[in-house]
Amino acid sequence: MTTDDLVELFREHGTGAVSDALDLLGRNGGLSGLSRRSGTGTVVGPAYTLRFEPVAAGVPAPAGEFIDDVPPGAVVVIANGGRLYCTVWGDILSEVAIRTGVAGTVIDGCCRDVAETRAVGYSVWSRAGYMKSGKNRVRLAAVGQPVEMCGTVVEPGDLVCADDSGAVVVPAALASEVGTQVRRIVTIEAAIRADVAAGVPLRDSRRRHGYNLAPRDGVAVPVPSADRS
Amino acid sequence: MTTDDLVELFREHGTGAVSDALDLLGRNGGLSGLSRRSGTGTVVGPAYTLRFEPVAAGVPAPAGEFIDDVPPGAVVVIANGGRLYCTVWGDILSEVAIRTGVAGTVIDGCCRDVAETRAVGYSVWSRAGYMKSGKNRVRLAAVGQPVEMCGTVVEPGDLVCADDSGAVVVPAALASEVGTQVRRIVTIEAAIRADVAAGVPLRDSRRRHGYNLAPRDGVAVPVPSADRS
Amino acid sequence: MTTDDLVELFREHGTGAVSDALDLLGRNGGLSGLSRRSGTGTVVGPAYTLRFEPVAAGVPAPAGEFIDDVPPGAVVVIANGGRLYCTVWGDILSEVAIRTGVAGTVIDGCCRDVAETRAVGYSVWSRAGYMKSGKNRVRLAAVGQPVEMCGTVVEPGDLVCADDSGAVVVPAALASEVGTQVRRIVTIEAAIRADVAAGVPLRDSRRRHGYNLAPRDGVAVPVPSADRS
Repeated sequence: MTTDDLVELFREHGTGAVSDALDLLGRNGGLSGLSRRSGTGTVVGPAYTLRFEPVAAGVPAPAGEFIDDVPPGAVVVIANGGRLYCTVWGDILSEVAIRTGVAGTVIDGCCRDVAETRAVGYSVWSRAGYMKSGKNRVRLAAVGQPVEMCGTVVEPGDLVCADDSGAVVVPAALASEVGTQVRRIVTIEAAIRADVAAGVPLRDSRRRHGYNLAPRDGVAVPVPSADRS
Repeated sequence: MTTDDLVELFREHGTGAVSDALDLLGRNGGLSGLSRRSGTGTVVGPAYTLRFEPVAAGVPAPAGEFIDDVPPGAVVVIANGGRLYCTVWGDILSEVAIRTGVAGTVIDGCCRDVAETRAVGYSVWSRAGYMKSGKNRVRLAAVGQPVEMCGTVVEPGDLVCADDSGAVVVPAALASEVGTQVRRIVTIEAAIRADVAAGVPLRDSRRRHGYNLAPRDGVAVPVPSADRS
Repeated sequence: MTTDDLVELFREHGTGAVSDALDLLGRNGGLSGLSRRSGTGTVVGPAYTLRFEPVAAGVPAPAGEFIDDVPPGAVVVIANGGRLYCTVWGDILSEVAIRTGVAGTVIDGCCRDVAETRAVGYSVWSRAGYMKSGKNRVRLAAVGQPVEMCGTVVEPGDLVCADDSGAVVVPAALASEVGTQVRRIVTIEAAIRADVAAGVPLRDSRRRHGYNLAPRDGVAVPVPSADRS
């Protein structure tokens, strides 16, 4: 599958199927603690990673200049260390992003201008809404580097999939394999869905389709201990 | 009042009146920390209780098989210890639940497939949305037993009432008495509402209707210390 | 500018511009941790401050009697110490407030009757929704006094501005100066907005309009250390 195929596949099936596929490969990609603030539907695209860091009080730190460099279709991933005291995204960025075809923004921190961002239909996930500018509080420290987001490392070009249940990240090197698993999962789930719509008990349908079997193809049971904190 | 009458009464008046009635009896039923993720209106029904527990990493733990056994009208109550790292409810469960007339689901933990669950109009309350499956992370440990939810014990058959302000639980043995108090409370509140709509100051109306008197009928002032943590 | 002019100006431009203006003056007004529960648009008005305090279990503490005294246009500011175990606002208060022209309510704590409050179109911000009454749990301890809200002190008559991104407070003595800064900020932002709508890179537009210059008029870089907790 090409990246475009994978983007389309993940967009069609959403974070649940993508996360289950990662589980089958023993990998965790969920970004815990984020909620959708604006936009609708499922957003998928390669990560354009940014990292912000705090500055000492009184030190000038301009707003980050990055939005013009984000390619169409990308998801802006902003690692702001979970900071709740200032924001790193607002309405002008949303307006530029939607004009230039950026897919969405995922923030380990806060966004502002929530109503304006909703009005233009741009999709943002964050820990909270708040209105205090990041200007002179945090500064852009890295662009296009691996970043730590909500306990998970996101590399540039990893595929981000986000919907009303949150955001999950697929390592680029695994994306094709995840795509294969997603297809298998959604085939099983479609069969189960058809069964239950026809009145078959879910328990029977799951058994019939092997939903609860141990992972196949020699893949061990996922070991997700790292994300239980 | 029959259970059906109580369900109807609580559904008409919502969590506020039910909680106030519990207060008059010196009992607390609020499930703190839960927010509505999907559905509309007030949901009321007897609790169908489930408890999940974590499994050691790498231990197979299939998805819980319970939805086929939930009777129509019940509220699924899932005690998952407030865990935020995995979910115990998703879209196929929502589809089965709405097909079989289950009233709603209340989770001390997370749910996924939030958009799909909204689309079918099924009501879920939880601590957060997230997408990682509970499969191989937690397992169904008890069905139809008393469970601890958000600091409160819920017994099978207790009446759960949930709306946009959260979820509250009425012990089955108290349900009838709570119903009597709800009727008294809503009668007073309707009178106050009519007064203020006619321009009477709320202070005067409350005094006229004894809103702020100590609880009547020999019931002492509620002692809600246990739920202040 | 008169207070009415300032109210209108802040309502037009929202919490982002007001917060940026406070930043230019080295003052912080954001009320961290609050989310909108009901209502739409931007709400602005002078603070009508209330403080609640807990009572010992079993001590009678009637519901607070204050709503009749709140002047039209004011924002009710309820300092309830961030308590999540009981509420201090419900539907009858919302009905009175919208009838008498109260602008909105901001609570460092919880509100209830969220659906009913939404139905009448009244605007409330809080930490969460919950249904347990504050009656006999907390009591009204002060009216019209300076109160501590979410780590910030709010004085009676301070201008509160709240929208979908949260709530920010402008000290009355600074309101006029904040108004002047808001006008300057929105003029620059309107120019930037026009540029980016015409396809100018944001980076170039920001430079052209001096967006990222250090604050002018001899005002030092904001020192927001106090609100980083």
